[in-house]
Amino acid sequence: MSILVVGSVAFDSIKTPFGEVDEVLGGSASYFSTAASFFTDVSLVAVIGDDFPQEHIDFLQSRNIDLSGLKKSPGATFRWKGRYDYDLNEAHTLETHLNVFEAFKPELPANYKDAEFVFLANIDPELQLEVLQQVSNPKLVACDTMNFWIEGKKSALIKTLEKVDILLINEAEVRQLANEPNLVKAAEIVRSYGPRILVVKRGEYGVLMFGEGSIFSAPAYPLEEVFDPTGAGDTFAGGFIGYLAATRNLDDHSMRKATVFGTVMASFTVEKFSLNRLKEIEYAEISDRYKKIKLLTDFADID
Amino acid sequence: MSILVVGSVAFDSIKTPFGEVDEVLGGSASYFSTAASFFTDVSLVAVIGDDFPQEHIDFLQSRNIDLSGLKKSPGATFRWKGRYDYDLNEAHTLETHLNVFEAFKPELPANYKDAEFVFLANIDPELQLEVLQQVSNPKLVACDTMNFWIEGKKSALIKTLEKVDILLINEAEVRQLANEPNLVKAAEIVRSYGPRILVVKRGEYGVLMFGEGSIFSAPAYPLEEVFDPTGAGDTFAGGFIGYLAATRNLDDHSMRKATVFGTVMASFTVEKFSLNRLKEIEYAEISDRYKKIKLLTDFADID
Repeated sequence: MSILVVGSVAFDSIKTPFGEVDEVLGGSASYFSTAASFFTDVSLVAVIGDDFPQEHIDFLQSRNIDLSGLKKSPGATFRWKGRYDYDLNEAHTLETHLNVFEAFKPELPANYKDAEFVFLANIDPELQLEVLQQVSNPKLVACDTMNFWIEGKKSALIKTLEKVDILLINEAEVRQLANEPNLVKAAEIVRSYGPRILVVKRGEYGVLMFGEGSIFSAPAYPLEEVFDPTGAGDTFAGGFIGYLAATRNLDDHSMRKATVFGTVMASFTVEKFSLNRLKEIEYAEISDRYKKIKLLTDFADID
Repeated sequence: MSILVVGSVAFDSIKTPFGEVDEVLGGSASYFSTAASFFTDVSLVAVIGDDFPQEHIDFLQSRNIDLSGLKKSPGATFRWKGRYDYDLNEAHTLETHLNVFEAFKPELPANYKDAEFVFLANIDPELQLEVLQQVSNPKLVACDTMNFWIEGKKSALIKTLEKVDILLINEAEVRQLANEPNLVKAAEIVRSYGPRILVVKRGEYGVLMFGEGSIFSAPAYPLEEVFDPTGAGDTFAGGFIGYLAATRNLDDHSMRKATVFGTVMASFTVEKFSLNRLKEIEYAEISDRYKKIKLLTDFADID
């Protein structure tokens, strides 16, 4: 089953303690759709400038991603410049140039409107809602957000969340959105805003998923080399929603497996800059890492 | 099988966002031995001043803890005063008065010298080594340490680690001890110093255990009320070593179960000040929480 994703396609310039790249392919929709494409078909809605190279278009198409919703506007593509120090959990933004993204009004091509699975990447919550209003009858709506919208557009965000089944969000942002320091309590408050599932992203500490009467904890995959965390969250979301869309099963067992697939996909992304690691892998490597996470967390029942 | 523990018995004065207590029972050996006493017998080596109340002695004895190694010296008992803000992961020390602990020279009673399981709580690594030299033929030696010793007595610490099977240590301290920011690499470096098992404590993010060709990840138990984290690490160690000593099985499966029992015991300690929560629980509550951690981490094998 196809997934509709709305988000950014961008150029990233990144410096980490391990290297530096300039204007590589980035953006939430790029990471999400590439990760999800290992599981199912993806339809992308985003905007690029007239400086966007054919090479990246060719790559996304090679992953079977439907680009009929990728609009090319006159001007420059969205650019982000950031730096990470040894604490790779924190990105330091050096420059953000929205460029053509500033006037982005997502418009869904006709063939996208019956999408059953929708992922609203981290964009203005008012735009997220506008997208939802163009989708006729989605089976599952997931979204991401960030502190910028929690601070600046909280009421719009809460209006969007009423229509959302799954919210994927960073740990500090759950606390901020709920105005509650205890994570378990904060999760319940945010779930009361609408999403029946809350996926709390904790970087190198993995993920906590809160559902109805159920909490699931998944560790991050322990890596000897974490090269660049950019895109990890969107890649997680791509593996997570990608698996759910492929199986069309939304019960708690399936959500748990989806969380582990998201974890696996994110573990590849952080091993290299941009989508370079995702470009290399095959499904056998995904299933191998899934099994390793099973071993990592396995322990016997009490006697 | 009995465990020998060497550490501190102290008075703690603590302020958290949720309350405040003055001169309550604390210290690494108190937390460790109380937690371990749910699984096996414990023999304690520590020093107290002549101000130490009989009430606390009675409590420790009621837990079947052998106090023949608890020396009473003229003077005041070790006192620690600390504060936690909403980020409960970080203790802010306000005052430390070593008092009788300053001249502490652990001397083992004759009946302690054939101990098979030894836990060296976080004290001067030179004292840790002196204790080991008094034990005839231990089956398992575990120890804790901290940044203070890594900075001030690194060579003595490394000499002690040569004789240690299991090191329990905080995440930041593994990185500091190995001088390596990547945790997986740092763990291998520290294991090369001697300990075949490294248990990395990550506070609310749980524990990573590194063994020979095996990594195990256990989450913390998600609590709606974390009241006071003081003693969580020593309580974890008590549950961990307590379970191992009770089963006398040191294989990887047993180490994983021990990690979960440690996690369970620590989750009780942080719910109230001092040892107040450990004083209330019964074994049925321990096994109930063990099962809940099993549910928390459970997911299906890949198809």
